[in-house]
Amino acid sequence: MAGEAKVLCMGNAIVDIIARVDDAFLAKHDRTKGAMMLVDAAASARIYADMPPAIERSGGSAGNTAAGIASFGGSAGYIGKVHDDQLGIVFRHDIRAAGVAFNTAAASDGEPTATSMILVTPDAQRTMNTHLGACTEISGDDVIEAEVAAADILYVEGYLWDTAPMKAAVVKAMDLAIKHGTKVSLSLSDSFCVDRFRDEFLALVKDKVDILFANEAEITALFQVETFGEAVALLRPHIRVAALTRGAEGSVILTKDQEAAVAAFPTEVEDTTGAGDLYAAGVLYGLSEQHDVETCAKLGGLAAAEVISHLGARAEVSLAELAAEKLGL
Amino acid sequence: MAGEAKVLCMGNAIVDIIARVDDAFLAKHDRTKGAMMLVDAAASARIYADMPPAIERSGGSAGNTAAGIASFGGSAGYIGKVHDDQLGIVFRHDIRAAGVAFNTAAASDGEPTATSMILVTPDAQRTMNTHLGACTEISGDDVIEAEVAAADILYVEGYLWDTAPMKAAVVKAMDLAIKHGTKVSLSLSDSFCVDRFRDEFLALVKDKVDILFANEAEITALFQVETFGEAVALLRPHIRVAALTRGAEGSVILTKDQEAAVAAFPTEVEDTTGAGDLYAAGVLYGLSEQHDVETCAKLGGLAAAEVISHLGARAEVSLAELAAEKLGL
Repeated sequence: MAGEAKVLCMGNAIVDIIARVDDAFLAKHDRTKGAMMLVDAAASARIYADMPPAIERSGGSAGNTAAGIASFGGSAGYIGKVHDDQLGIVFRHDIRAAGVAFNTAAASDGEPTATSMILVTPDAQRTMNTHLGACTEISGDDVIEAEVAAADILYVEGYLWDTAPMKAAVVKAMDLAIKHGTKVSLSLSDSFCVDRFRDEFLALVKDKVDILFANEAEITALFQVETFGEAVALLRPHIRVAALTRGAEGSVILTKDQEAAVAAFPTEVEDTTGAGDLYAAGVLYGLSEQHDVETCAKLGGLAAAEVISHLGARAEVSLAELAAEKLGL
Repeated sequence: MAGEAKVLCMGNAIVDIIARVDDAFLAKHDRTKGAMMLVDAAASARIYADMPPAIERSGGSAGNTAAGIASFGGSAGYIGKVHDDQLGIVFRHDIRAAGVAFNTAAASDGEPTATSMILVTPDAQRTMNTHLGACTEISGDDVIEAEVAAADILYVEGYLWDTAPMKAAVVKAMDLAIKHGTKVSLSLSDSFCVDRFRDEFLALVKDKVDILFANEAEITALFQVETFGEAVALLRPHIRVAALTRGAEGSVILTKDQEAAVAAFPTEVEDTTGAGDLYAAGVLYGLSEQHDVETCAKLGGLAAAEVISHLGARAEVSLAELAAEKLGL
């Protein structure tokens, strides 16, 4: 299957454990609403023991993006580390069944497949508590040069930028992409991630990234500025394309000589989990199919609207059919 | 926690793997629509490999019933066997988080926690493919006399009647119930189960069961008669209460001197999985709270309507609140 995917996505392979809770639950467990917080095994068990009945569904930011690209009818591959356990089997099944090429070997030693307890509050916000588990076992060995070389775009989630071996895997993939003329795309993922690794993210953006995904909080945190406009001005020299999401206001897509604001698709919001991931799916699918950037942003908005209309971060309808119906594509 | 539960439910502890498929998928894999079919590990893997992306959710017939009773605000316990693995942890978490007492030790040897691949077709029918796994490890040792003695009702799903050790566990529980004046309730579960074990089920119904649950296909199969009326006449001498479901037509509740037909609650049907389980939850909750049998049947119909309005076999809203709103209880 190597060499088939136009968009190769790379990230933490996670099974989501999703439940609705009230704000008091977040307060009791000292969770910051809307954030992704890493938890160790003990904290994970403590929160889970107190959590209501849940459903399990494959997730992982870049995994959601890859599944979204495939749902559009695009060509997607995935690199991510699961353990050889029940949830690892679930993750592998779901991403392959979605039509994504996924060949990363499962770890047979070490920690279990990663889980993220996703707490959805009545305001449809999601608060994520991720136990990285087997994701920390990823290394440069999991990056296959032929897969990177064959792709048009390598897409990396910022969440993957964590331990030294994880960072080494990211750098290896990006450097191989640059060597082979594959465009490099990065999502900043989360403003707390940006705060932790600001200088490193800034260096990646300046030196390696062609296509950047960020929301307003992340991009202003990256440049330590007050306003979106200031961040845009500072970012522009460094990227080929930037897709910047602004929640209910939609998104702004930016190139060296173009800036287009695209409104969000109206929808009933049930659970915002995966909004950014599916937005990225639409944009990356659009870019891989040579659509103009404004159309790419519309595809992103369409996919984001679908995924926030229900619980869970994978699309529940064919995004290809949705794009045909809503955008005539 | 022993001794707290008024209704002690006993069955196969299963995590459901749920996906929507079309009729062609059932045909390709030679599945009988609407049935529960047992599959071995190889057949399970074969169907799973071909199945679309899925969600995982705790299930198991009697587990669904126990969770439903708890959702009504009733007092429920559960006996069932999981393995000490990730899906076993999921099952245990969910049933306890639902408010059900569950103390059966997990198996540390042998097969993994049971899964059922539930294929939901566009007509909202569910076709189940169950790999019993750790469920076959249950034995009489898992039946705690004090728990049975303390309960008002012991409820057993017919699916549990499979291998000799599983049957021995059921018989031990029923005999302890009879010894301690705990009423014995049985669900016939599935007409294929009835066909396989007709004589044994008939003996249980005649000798041990006070409260029987069955649908029309199961009860006519049990007595090998053509019509519902004939089955009712043959059944009546043997039971204290029978709750007989007739799909969209509602249910009939039967005692020695009473017969009441109760209409189904109207609802949009998304997925019929769990309809019988939640009907049983309403009836058992009602009986445990000393409601009259017609009210019990209404509670059953209400819970069944809730569970078939969405994917998955556990209630998604508080059945206590629903009963207050719809039935003024």
